[in-house]
Amino acid sequence: MRVGLLGFGTVGSSFAEVLAAQPGSGVRITRIFNRGVGRKRSHEKARLVPAEAVWTEHVEEVLEAADVDVVVELLGGLDPAERWLQAALLAGRHVVTANKQLIAYRGAALFALAAEKGVQLLYGAAVAGGVPVIPGVAQGLSGDRLTRISGILNGTCNFILSSMESGAEYQGALGRAQAAGYAEADPSADVDGFDARAKLCILARLALHAEIDPEEIPAQTIATISAVDFSYAQELGCTLRQVSRAELVDGMVSAGVGPMLVPRSSPFAWSQGTRNMVVTSGLFGGDVVFSGHGAGGHPTAVAVLSDVRAIAENSVQVRLPAHRMKVVGDVLAPHYLRFVVADEPGIVAAIAAVLARHQVNIDSLLQHRGHPAARLPFVITTEPCLSSTVTRAIAEMAQMAFMVQPPLCLQMLVADDPETV
Amino acid sequence: MRVGLLGFGTVGSSFAEVLAAQPGSGVRITRIFNRGVGRKRSHEKARLVPAEAVWTEHVEEVLEAADVDVVVELLGGLDPAERWLQAALLAGRHVVTANKQLIAYRGAALFALAAEKGVQLLYGAAVAGGVPVIPGVAQGLSGDRLTRISGILNGTCNFILSSMESGAEYQGALGRAQAAGYAEADPSADVDGFDARAKLCILARLALHAEIDPEEIPAQTIATISAVDFSYAQELGCTLRQVSRAELVDGMVSAGVGPMLVPRSSPFAWSQGTRNMVVTSGLFGGDVVFSGHGAGGHPTAVAVLSDVRAIAENSVQVRLPAHRMKVVGDVLAPHYLRFVVADEPGIVAAIAAVLARHQVNIDSLLQHRGHPAARLPFVITTEPCLSSTVTRAIAEMAQMAFMVQPPLCLQMLVADDPETV
Repeated sequence: MRVGLLGFGTVGSSFAEVLAAQPGSGVRITRIFNRGVGRKRSHEKARLVPAEAVWTEHVEEVLEAADVDVVVELLGGLDPAERWLQAALLAGRHVVTANKQLIAYRGAALFALAAEKGVQLLYGAAVAGGVPVIPGVAQGLSGDRLTRISGILNGTCNFILSSMESGAEYQGALGRAQAAGYAEADPSADVDGFDARAKLCILARLALHAEIDPEEIPAQTIATISAVDFSYAQELGCTLRQVSRAELVDGMVSAGVGPMLVPRSSPFAWSQGTRNMVVTSGLFGGDVVFSGHGAGGHPTAVAVLSDVRAIAENSVQVRLPAHRMKVVGDVLAPHYLRFVVADEPGIVAAIAAVLARHQVNIDSLLQHRGHPAARLPFVITTEPCLSSTVTRAIAEMAQMAFMVQPPLCLQMLVADDPETV
Repeated sequence: MRVGLLGFGTVGSSFAEVLAAQPGSGVRITRIFNRGVGRKRSHEKARLVPAEAVWTEHVEEVLEAADVDVVVELLGGLDPAERWLQAALLAGRHVVTANKQLIAYRGAALFALAAEKGVQLLYGAAVAGGVPVIPGVAQGLSGDRLTRISGILNGTCNFILSSMESGAEYQGALGRAQAAGYAEADPSADVDGFDARAKLCILARLALHAEIDPEEIPAQTIATISAVDFSYAQELGCTLRQVSRAELVDGMVSAGVGPMLVPRSSPFAWSQGTRNMVVTSGLFGGDVVFSGHGAGGHPTAVAVLSDVRAIAENSVQVRLPAHRMKVVGDVLAPHYLRFVVADEPGIVAAIAAVLARHQVNIDSLLQHRGHPAARLPFVITTEPCLSSTVTRAIAEMAQMAFMVQPPLCLQMLVADDPETV
């Protein structure tokens, strides 16, 4: 199996390294496309590439080369990756990609093209890098009827939130994530949920057979979470994680991405650092948990090489047809409302009145000591209610004069299998 | 894809049920072998089998029938299952089996026969039933070099030990497991580790490419664990689980099955009830965790149907060659030694002298109050030492007059990845 590699950055060079450690695998790199080939060839890991491999700055010398069986795309982004992979598929080449945006937004058309040309398009590295959730679900759970998939799909957010669990504030935890190379200078794609949203679409297609538009999935930022939320969450037997969830409900997909309260007994709570986790829920098999390193050069390279080997072994991935479905962002769940107020008499009464008017029932009211009266944080948890309802109530409250900052509203995950989530 | 089913018990009838819930899957049951067909046909779930399916008490009417593409074996045991599946493979039929003993003890020859006949032999249900660890490892981690595989492979033991964690004594927990149908009247295969040992061999072949003999793997019973061990384990930041481990060491496989102390921060500690868990450790991808329902009709049926669908989709499982390897039972690890003594002066000195003579260093000594002096339990933990060494030391101590019962010696698992085990 002869590989044409697009991109020799972190993952590309790790791919060369992981491959070099497995002599006799029958996989070898014959061509490499990258800008600035001269610089890349002096990369320490370039020595791991066979000497006879062709390095080029002209992508067409890889896409349609006679000595390439599978094009491995590690560039990312929609354009030009989409055009280039279309060209490779049209030329009858198999494709392996780690490109989550491309598979989330353009996957349906690319899969159709691959099927038409009788070649394979595998993307195990696009979600949860080193965690084999895509082959696990495709090959191992095709016998079940999955109704829900949820996960911790963004390692950067998990690093930040699990650092905050240990006492850090948001800005400090973000800074540490940036210093460690986990977060970009502009962290928006991670912390605002856009990265996780694309991955959730890929999982929904695979597990729920639902084609959904990433833009339709509501995403809530983790940037408004503060240390005090961990303190209140702990009192509720919970911690906070960025959770991505999609569930089949009445022929539609209820989906969302954002920080949520998760029970400390849940596997989500156990996920620390940059680890990723996916939990599938099936009618017959119950909950299945996959967890591991979601990103990084080596784990991602393992996923890419596993896909290449699967193609080499002629292992066609089980692919069940997916159908276009509408996304419902509204969720029936208990909610966590955190207010920061300038203390004065009558605040709880005023807030309770708004909730009552919207028919939202209060489950508990928590207020920890030791905060200044001018910026007093306290929490109300609700009984299960629609997020759209509680959002309307919150919008009314946000206008109240004693609010020092906009109220925070988070979904609380409830354990429905006592042994897991 | 036409299925000939061998066995219509719990899993067989669940398979019919799960299949009936997935119209359009392209899979249908055409023949069913079982003893006492009359009785089986009156089973409630027999209505879910297509009316035109042939029921028979003559196995050859399934194994070589022209209208059977894949033989699904749900009988268990080595004989006659082995002969029957050989006949099916020789007749050019694909085989899907949930039979862990058969795959562990006779897998190598059966895989060779399947390869020779150009048919598939899949066994996803043989280990950790509903947890897709076999396709996950075969398809999703073939790009890594796995060096260790460990897991909670026996749901009965996990049920018993996680019940004991909540305060039950061994006999009570075993009784509850028997009442719930999780444990046999003779629980030896589960509690003494023989069931887990067979599964560990299957995983070692798949993940470590090592053919090992189940009989060579040391297995320690959980029947000697008592409530006091959980109390001491808690003080050590641990709990107890039946763990199965196999690791490549210098061209051999270090392997063992038995109750071990696991850190409470480890995923093993999080596994409750009858859930199974497998953790793979790779040179490049690090630790990957798979968890879910290991047994039961429905989860097992999901694994079986997933295998049948994979064959229907022409998905050949990636199978890398395995090599015969020797098993080393000896492990370098810290150990937990629990003694029950008739108290008298000089006991600790006597025990410490034996350990010193064997060059085993003591790490801690724990003794909780409130136990009778005539049956006083206390614990010594050691620094890392060979289990063979500490076993010799323990054998000497067992002769001492103050020992009320034989000392208990357990391996303590150490977290080497701070984020997981």
